Amino acid sequence: MTDTDARDVSPVSLTAASRPDQPPVTPELEDLYRGFEKELLVPLWTEIGDLMPRQPKSKAQPHLWEWQTLVELAARSGNLVPVGRGGERRAIALANPGLGGRPYATPTLWAAIQYLMPGEDAPEHRHTQNAFRFVVEGEGVWTVVEGDPVPMRRGDFLPQPGMNWHAHHNAASAPMAWIDGLDIPFQYDIEAQFFDFGRDHLPDEERTVPDRSRSQRLWGHPGLTPVARSGRTAATPLLCYRWEDTDAALADQLRLEREGHPSTVEHGHAVVRYTNPTTGEDVLPTIRVQFHRIAAGAETAPRRETGSSVYQVFDGSGRVRVGDFSWSVQRGDLFVVPSWQPFSVASDASASDSDSGALDLFQFSDAPIFTKLNLYRSHVEEIAR
Amino acid sequence: MTDTDARDVSPVSLTAASRPDQPPVTPELEDLYRGFEKELLVPLWTEIGDLMPRQPKSKAQPHLWEWQTLVELAARSGNLVPVGRGGERRAIALANPGLGGRPYATPTLWAAIQYLMPGEDAPEHRHTQNAFRFVVEGEGVWTVVEGDPVPMRRGDFLPQPGMNWHAHHNAASAPMAWIDGLDIPFQYDIEAQFFDFGRDHLPDEERTVPDRSRSQRLWGHPGLTPVARSGRTAATPLLCYRWEDTDAALADQLRLEREGHPSTVEHGHAVVRYTNPTTGEDVLPTIRVQFHRIAAGAETAPRRETGSSVYQVFDGSGRVRVGDFSWSVQRGDLFVVPSWQPFSVASDASASDSDSGALDLFQFSDAPIFTKLNLYRSHVEEIAR
Amino acid sequence: MTDTDARDVSPVSLTAASRPDQPPVTPELEDLYRGFEKELLVPLWTEIGDLMPRQPKSKAQPHLWEWQTLVELAARSGNLVPVGRGGERRAIALANPGLGGRPYATPTLWAAIQYLMPGEDAPEHRHTQNAFRFVVEGEGVWTVVEGDPVPMRRGDFLPQPGMNWHAHHNAASAPMAWIDGLDIPFQYDIEAQFFDFGRDHLPDEERTVPDRSRSQRLWGHPGLTPVARSGRTAATPLLCYRWEDTDAALADQLRLEREGHPSTVEHGHAVVRYTNPTTGEDVLPTIRVQFHRIAAGAETAPRRETGSSVYQVFDGSGRVRVGDFSWSVQRGDLFVVPSWQPFSVASDASASDSDSGALDLFQFSDAPIFTKLNLYRSHVEEIAR
Amino acid sequence: MTDTDARDVSPVSLTAASRPDQPPVTPELEDLYRGFEKELLVPLWTEIGDLMPRQPKSKAQPHLWEWQTLVELAARSGNLVPVGRGGERRAIALANPGLGGRPYATPTLWAAIQYLMPGEDAPEHRHTQNAFRFVVEGEGVWTVVEGDPVPMRRGDFLPQPGMNWHAHHNAASAPMAWIDGLDIPFQYDIEAQFFDFGRDHLPDEERTVPDRSRSQRLWGHPGLTPVARSGRTAATPLLCYRWEDTDAALADQLRLEREGHPSTVEHGHAVVRYTNPTTGEDVLPTIRVQFHRIAAGAETAPRRETGSSVYQVFDGSGRVRVGDFSWSVQRGDLFVVPSWQPFSVASDASASDSDSGALDLFQFSDAPIFTKLNLYRSHVEEIAR
Repeated sequence: MTDTDARDVSPVSLTAASRPDQPPVTPELEDLYRGFEKELLVPLWTEIGDLMPRQPKSKAQPHLWEWQTLVELAARSGNLVPVGRGGERRAIALANPGLGGRPYATPTLWAAIQYLMPGEDAPEHRHTQNAFRFVVEGEGVWTVVEGDPVPMRRGDFLPQPGMNWHAHHNAASAPMAWIDGLDIPFQYDIEAQFFDFGRDHLPDEERTVPDRSRSQRLWGHPGLTPVARSGRTAATPLLCYRWEDTDAALADQLRLEREGHPSTVEHGHAVVRYTNPTTGEDVLPTIRVQFHRIAAGAETAPRRETGSSVYQVFDGSGRVRVGDFSWSVQRGDLFVVPSWQPFSVASDASASDSDSGALDLFQFSDAPIFTKLNLYRSHVEEIAR
Repeated sequence: MTDTDARDVSPVSLTAASRPDQPPVTPELEDLYRGFEKELLVPLWTEIGDLMPRQPKSKAQPHLWEWQTLVELAARSGNLVPVGRGGERRAIALANPGLGGRPYATPTLWAAIQYLMPGEDAPEHRHTQNAFRFVVEGEGVWTVVEGDPVPMRRGDFLPQPGMNWHAHHNAASAPMAWIDGLDIPFQYDIEAQFFDFGRDHLPDEERTVPDRSRSQRLWGHPGLTPVARSGRTAATPLLCYRWEDTDAALADQLRLEREGHPSTVEHGHAVVRYTNPTTGEDVLPTIRVQFHRIAAGAETAPRRETGSSVYQVFDGSGRVRVGDFSWSVQRGDLFVVPSWQPFSVASDASASDSDSGALDLFQFSDAPIFTKLNLYRSHVEEIAR
Repeated sequence: MTDTDARDVSPVSLTAASRPDQPPVTPELEDLYRGFEKELLVPLWTEIGDLMPRQPKSKAQPHLWEWQTLVELAARSGNLVPVGRGGERRAIALANPGLGGRPYATPTLWAAIQYLMPGEDAPEHRHTQNAFRFVVEGEGVWTVVEGDPVPMRRGDFLPQPGMNWHAHHNAASAPMAWIDGLDIPFQYDIEAQFFDFGRDHLPDEERTVPDRSRSQRLWGHPGLTPVARSGRTAATPLLCYRWEDTDAALADQLRLEREGHPSTVEHGHAVVRYTNPTTGEDVLPTIRVQFHRIAAGAETAPRRETGSSVYQVFDGSGRVRVGDFSWSVQRGDLFVVPSWQPFSVASDASASDSDSGALDLFQFSDAPIFTKLNLYRSHVEEIAR
Repeated sequence: MTDTDARDVSPVSLTAASRPDQPPVTPELEDLYRGFEKELLVPLWTEIGDLMPRQPKSKAQPHLWEWQTLVELAARSGNLVPVGRGGERRAIALANPGLGGRPYATPTLWAAIQYLMPGEDAPEHRHTQNAFRFVVEGEGVWTVVEGDPVPMRRGDFLPQPGMNWHAHHNAASAPMAWIDGLDIPFQYDIEAQFFDFGRDHLPDEERTVPDRSRSQRLWGHPGLTPVARSGRTAATPLLCYRWEDTDAALADQLRLEREGHPSTVEHGHAVVRYTNPTTGEDVLPTIRVQFHRIAAGAETAPRRETGSSVYQVFDGSGRVRVGDFSWSVQRGDLFVVPSWQPFSVASDASASDSDSGALDLFQFSDAPIFTKLNLYRSHVEEIAR
């Protein structure tokens, strides 16, 4: 990683120019470099080391945010900061320490805790940014998406494709917190964003709380496509992936492994990917979302991949290593894995043949950007155990 | 439809030659036509009316086979015809009356009743033909596919992609009948078939009867992909689509319609398509499989589509119209809808706001052949009601 | 392969029933089989050997048609058979000796010589059948496709996607012959066909003979897409592939091979495939078209592939082997390679380092049907040289 | 565009906090915000206006670089800065005035003038960044890509897909300048980059100067795929798109328009897109490259699209408008069109029916990033003429 943020340096760095691979600094060269600066030009030869590294050198840093701290600050915000049109959401974003104070968990991803007091409404809007909600604790809030109310409960994953109208309401008697993931930094950097305000108040029929959303009733049956709504869509039409299904899928993988059948990505490591049932591809055009279960006593091999991830501990506790960092983690904690930094995790519990003691991790990443643009790479380190 | 089967006519039909759009029959013309015949040539101008019709003229005919008759004949076969290597299966195929006695339900599709006595085994083999099983009554047979035992129960749909090893065993104390669908006629006509014999006896671990197959444990969770097995496959990796899921999906569509939300293909007509979760496309490369529920009191608009279908009544009773034919149908009855013949169906029950009285229809067709080759068309007739 | 064409046998063959793998013929069995026949049913166990062979057993046979014979018969037709509405085209089709006298070169493909006298018009029509023209000798005819006149000259390949309007006119002072290829048998068997008559007379502006068609001016520039017409299409928008380009591409491949660079499919064997520039896929949805150049002295390894091909010798002479057949071939000769029959070819000329003496072969096949439906296989036999 | 670069503000902006849509600044709120800052958190409600604008607000600015200035500075570099391992290339990049001095022409694209003195070599390397060369004047340099020497001449476009080995050599007696386009900023921001050094010296056989590269001999024939090399590739296998072809394609479009046939994107505006012949899609996974010809007297309608472009004037002169900017441009001039800023251009020449006087513009953009991620939008303003 470069020691200095290249964004702070002047267009032509004379410091760089005195390095051994640079031409000798002469009055003519200095004059040339002043000419470049005047004409809004920058030579490659002074910048190539930073611009075109031998392998990804992430400016983003590995970092851990503890859930209890986030919830406490969010609760204080609940008393001080109203929710309404303009600010739109009581969401508090992770700001990666390597990214200059910007509300960017990684160079491409936004991760925030959102907090809604009893009876509060977050007003309807839509935007090109792809989004989702994931619930680590609590229930009682519903999100209404394109007029379809979707209840939110612990373990539920709610994708929110770009340009879908959406609003939130807390119908419970207690505050509720959850996490939001979006591709805000990515769309900000490439300058793709559109945003529209929606209705200020939703009609009563959109404020009911059905047990299942309409999208789930149409699309939530495994392998079954509703013919009236068939056709490929860029993002999933299924707006809620229920915890019961995710949990069962992970448990099935680990049991199949114990029965001797290939089902896990490595020993004791089950993974499901949330997918768009119209294509089998990632659930959102720019965001990959996966759920990991590390069996009691298991440890994953260090793995690098291009692109960045945010993880949240859903259950259990364990030990995480990312590059030179290492943390103990527990329920709700959030951490960042930057591009190409080796990542591994171990559950705290002792090995057992039961299903208990597993470490459950929710993950989202920018992998679809890399896979669709032919930039995805991964590497698993061989380790002796 | 042509009155005569062109397959029976001589290469150059002098009958045709005397039609008004044909050249006058002279000795020179007769000599020319003899020259054609000798050199294995056929002119277009005598054949074009049959070969290139204004719209599809199916040689296949609409036809109904009653389930009770099929089951009685299959049961007699159970006593007279052993199952084993060579004959491979006790399967009895529908032979469309328009297709010259061939065991072709339609020009592309095979449909048969298969019958297995208690304790019998149908030996393992594999073939390029894509296949499936559908169970209209009974249970107790399992199919083992690629070593994965899959139980079969009423309403279950079991796809069998080409070149998967498979065998059957009846572990129950009663005979069991079900239907097989394959693309045998299609692969026969284009000459694509390979066939391999497998093991004569399966090991005990493949003869157990788990409640859920391994494929279902990996792939049977809605919208969730097992990352260890991800990647597009030409056919579905999910080997059983359970009746509980199909039934729930159809019930959801009709209830959503009653609640005022778009969910059905037309009033009172719910349809689900069995799909490959790795792509969202048809469950098999050559066969589309769908399940229809016609609500009590509902009637579908006459619809034509290119390609042919076989339907089986799963539940309820109703009135079916195909081209100039019309039949009353009940549980288990099978019928054929040829290419471009208008098809409609009405449930016998009176209209009601409940879920009861619906007519349930299982359908399979050759639509993927048409869609992938840019040949698919459909047309719904407007009708006044 | 069955000795008799199963299409001729009765639904239940008692001959088959006396084979050793069949149940013993008893009065009960005979009664059962009569029951099957009465109810339009056919058992699998008597038919499986024919229906589901171990590997493709083509009913189509390898066969050679000599060009001189075809041209002579076509010329006689030119004097006896007018061209006009109803008969539509003076086209004479190859009838494979294994396919019962039907005008089918292979089970899926139609191949015909078409012949037009000076000044004659073949009237405009369109149809779902995909088609093409290939010119082995002569010039002077144009084909007008969707109002775009396309001149035809030796070596030119003119694809004709399904449902494009088209007509022909011979503007020269001599008759002209060329070959037509279509997927008529395939569409006939699956019952997909639509056909519409067009204008009886084309306006003068469509009867001009520009040097290049409009489609060539839009799409005939390598790697360049006209943005005004961009977007994927099921078939190629380029309506003529000129001989100069094909010849140059083949010559380049052989020269690159001589320079030591991988460029040919095997030693001395250059192949180009005509492709749809909007997708890079086959030029027509159901028909693959390729051009082979076998260098002087070269011989191809025997190769099997699923699906059938028709070849025409464009230039040179050589020796062709297909299954148990072997022929000497020369300019214009047409021959058929059925499914899975080994095919090899050698040029007559002695090996040389020049470009002369090569054997040029035009080929069309049904490979897209097989590749899109997951049924394509090929196998090259290792041979010692 | 925002007046201040949000990257410079502190994580929680109290300035923002005093805006009317913000909560009242109280000691408790200040304390909360200090808590956010300490814990590396940023609230959405202070940042949303900048982060999630109503429509793209580009930080990048429209800007023009004059070719003569670039060439003069590059020539001075030719005398002062050697080319060799480490600095790798004598390339001087456009630094957009809105992007903080970084060598970014736009938020995603790098554009540079590269300059090579007679006899000089730019050493071999490879990198994940997708690249291309475009030649506005001169000849004599070849680029060797994967061992295949490709000559460069005025009007030639040479794509350079990621991870292809490549080097340059100037075999002429005069210096040569051309432009390089890459996705360096995009890959830098998402942290995707890998880079490898290659051979320091190329063997003699790679230093020859054939008239056509091997890739052109394999892939440069319209609509013809070399079967030995078939298969979809993420980027084009054709490494040079010759000026003769581009020029002919543009001339054909304008002539077809004059003949009354649809061929141009709007009156007098021909556009070709460089495409990957294996897919028909964009020539590089992240970069769209197009060539525009504005006929004499024509003017394009103002058009917005998401994503950014760099244009170079290849021939002619004209008037360009981008947002609030307007410039007169001539051969070689480079300018930037940021995301969603309206862009139009008019040729200087008077309308004529001949081919002369047109304004030729080379364009590259990041459109594939937007199209593949479901973020592409465009809008053409209706104008009265």
